[in-house]
Amino acid sequence: MAIINPNYDKLVAGYLFPEINRRVKAFTSANEGVKIYRLGIGNTTEPLRPKVIQGLREGVDKLADVKTYTGYGDEQGDTRLRNAIAKHYASGNVSIDPSEVFVSDGAKSDVANIQSIFDVNNTVAVQDPAYPVYVDTNVIAGRTGHFDQKTNQYTGLIYMPCNEENGFIPNVNDLPAGVGKADLIYLCSPNNPTGAVMNRKSLESFVGYAIEHKSVILFDAAYNWYINDSTLPKSIYEIENAKKCAMEFNSFSKKDGFTGVRLGWTIVPKELVAEDATEGKLNAMWNGRQTRFFNGASNIAQEGGLAALSEQGMLESNVLVDFYMENARIIRNGLRQKGIQTFGGDNAPYIWMKNPNGMDSWKFFDKMLNEANVVTTPGVGFGPEGQGFTRLSAFGHRENVEAAMESIKQKLQI
Amino acid sequence: MAIINPNYDKLVAGYLFPEINRRVKAFTSANEGVKIYRLGIGNTTEPLRPKVIQGLREGVDKLADVKTYTGYGDEQGDTRLRNAIAKHYASGNVSIDPSEVFVSDGAKSDVANIQSIFDVNNTVAVQDPAYPVYVDTNVIAGRTGHFDQKTNQYTGLIYMPCNEENGFIPNVNDLPAGVGKADLIYLCSPNNPTGAVMNRKSLESFVGYAIEHKSVILFDAAYNWYINDSTLPKSIYEIENAKKCAMEFNSFSKKDGFTGVRLGWTIVPKELVAEDATEGKLNAMWNGRQTRFFNGASNIAQEGGLAALSEQGMLESNVLVDFYMENARIIRNGLRQKGIQTFGGDNAPYIWMKNPNGMDSWKFFDKMLNEANVVTTPGVGFGPEGQGFTRLSAFGHRENVEAAMESIKQKLQI
Repeated sequence: MAIINPNYDKLVAGYLFPEINRRVKAFTSANEGVKIYRLGIGNTTEPLRPKVIQGLREGVDKLADVKTYTGYGDEQGDTRLRNAIAKHYASGNVSIDPSEVFVSDGAKSDVANIQSIFDVNNTVAVQDPAYPVYVDTNVIAGRTGHFDQKTNQYTGLIYMPCNEENGFIPNVNDLPAGVGKADLIYLCSPNNPTGAVMNRKSLESFVGYAIEHKSVILFDAAYNWYINDSTLPKSIYEIENAKKCAMEFNSFSKKDGFTGVRLGWTIVPKELVAEDATEGKLNAMWNGRQTRFFNGASNIAQEGGLAALSEQGMLESNVLVDFYMENARIIRNGLRQKGIQTFGGDNAPYIWMKNPNGMDSWKFFDKMLNEANVVTTPGVGFGPEGQGFTRLSAFGHRENVEAAMESIKQKLQI
Repeated sequence: MAIINPNYDKLVAGYLFPEINRRVKAFTSANEGVKIYRLGIGNTTEPLRPKVIQGLREGVDKLADVKTYTGYGDEQGDTRLRNAIAKHYASGNVSIDPSEVFVSDGAKSDVANIQSIFDVNNTVAVQDPAYPVYVDTNVIAGRTGHFDQKTNQYTGLIYMPCNEENGFIPNVNDLPAGVGKADLIYLCSPNNPTGAVMNRKSLESFVGYAIEHKSVILFDAAYNWYINDSTLPKSIYEIENAKKCAMEFNSFSKKDGFTGVRLGWTIVPKELVAEDATEGKLNAMWNGRQTRFFNGASNIAQEGGLAALSEQGMLESNVLVDFYMENARIIRNGLRQKGIQTFGGDNAPYIWMKNPNGMDSWKFFDKMLNEANVVTTPGVGFGPEGQGFTRLSAFGHRENVEAAMESIKQKLQI
């Protein structure tokens, strides 16, 4: 009698983006011929740049030739790529050993799978709002209770509210100091969905908490490429002692448009410890997990990653990042001209807007879709604190972004 | 106080292949200049064929052009590829709906991750010997007790012995009928490591057991491309009622040399049920798992997969399969000339050989390495019933396979 993992039934509604797709499909089939503008999902739209295309082509060509063909590689990633990633950190004055770098098919997989190496009884803390993957994967693993319809929260999970009052930056004082303290702390900076970036002082406070309580910080740095302000940390390892208490997730997706190529990495420092894990143990455990559950990222994608980290590749990704950041500026300005209050969008590709008249997230989603024909992401989809907010993504063709903003300007009734 | 998943400490020794690598490295550093022949790991060696290279190149080119660029696709796979896979099954008279096809980055990931949708209290049955991933991932999930050094088995796991007496085919009568019956049953046919293929009658007996006990069969068909004998099933769905009780895993790795490209798929039929899951539920759960833990296979790899399933692609993969099967014939004949008893290698790319004089698996591994300089895989690495056996892989360059067999012929002292 095979029985199912009952935790799946705790998951609410369905994942945010399928629900958005459902509503958009319903709208388009009821309004044939109406042009839809998508500022919803954080999906890249611009073609890959020449250097990575060259790398990917070389990757394919190598597989066509018996002299350069490769099959299974190391599950942890090609040594050349692990070295290049370590070198990239070194360029930011962060010392990472290549054996601490684990290449993967993307940051989503890693932030989802990392919880496998921790006990089910750890208490998890997330920002609210947050990328749903942090929450849902821990629900499935059994680290939460049921979803409480009254609070819109899972019981047993610590939510760190990120709102106007704290500038959408989590406050370490929202973590319990005694009973019920946070064991695994997910932080995302620059933040998806709010676009807020944690400064040194804020990150230091979390590192201090983690060291004191032997907690582990799971730091999602996938959007660090969008930081303009040079005083803001791009890696948690810029903070003293962070290697003792933090893993870091990173990705080529938003740097180089690799969302469809699939390539990312995770740093598990040798110095990282937990209550019952001394130095080296967590690094070895993640190695053990990856060698058993994963067979390495695509060799083709890895050749693309090497190109992306080359000098020319870095210059070209800056061009791509600048393009999307100009979109962010256009969206921000357009919303502000409409009298809408916005946050983020200066060091991140997401604009977090406050709905006019405190309108409910899904209601405003429908209003935007019906009136301006613009697809956005309802803030409440990222957590209860997102209620009354909307996320707009700067990933889009310029003409689409401009047309969307024009449509909002002309048609949205507020 | 973050605490670790204690199940990781139950894992023995380290994964089989890292241990082999360790011994080979030790040998080569002690014997500089000695040529090593590798018949160990099942890693493809021949270049990709023209049609898939064309597909992969088109995949890269599409990403270079704003008109054809794609980012995140459906986590379940590109609709065109899901359709092509369903069509492939139809060509074998098996009816699969595209919504039952989940494209992934490879069969290893899927056979490892599938257990996530089942409760931790299910009893797991594996063939012995078996691909270590089935066992290790369930150890990590907590579905076993500790490893018993006396029996060389994990407690709480059902091992179905596959040996000379039963032709290396698992016997359903080795599964308990009452208390402690098997809930999740891993079957691999053609088998890795023994090369044995289950016939219709044998598969029917397992389907019968699963239907009777509401068990779920996890059927690994990654090597079905190597079946020559047309009476042997290539898919478990050729068996009546299998859609009610079985998932199937498949891969482009050994069909097209995609080991480094990373592409596979899993079939979760809508009809599939479990004790507490009615029709459609398990399909929806795997969909839920994949949308939260995975972001789709590489768009480039998927273009390659489409090419691989085209008419021309199928013809070209037959050439590749035939090449490796000729290697298998050479290995089998070479070993037999040496008076060694072999199994498999006729409908599978693996030859399972009985060590001379009942020699211990690791001892014979060292003997082969030291005397003939050939790397093999010790049978015991796949489970206790593998003790006294050795796996040889037919994946290799022809000249390497021939030289290895010549070396065995001349230097192996038996």
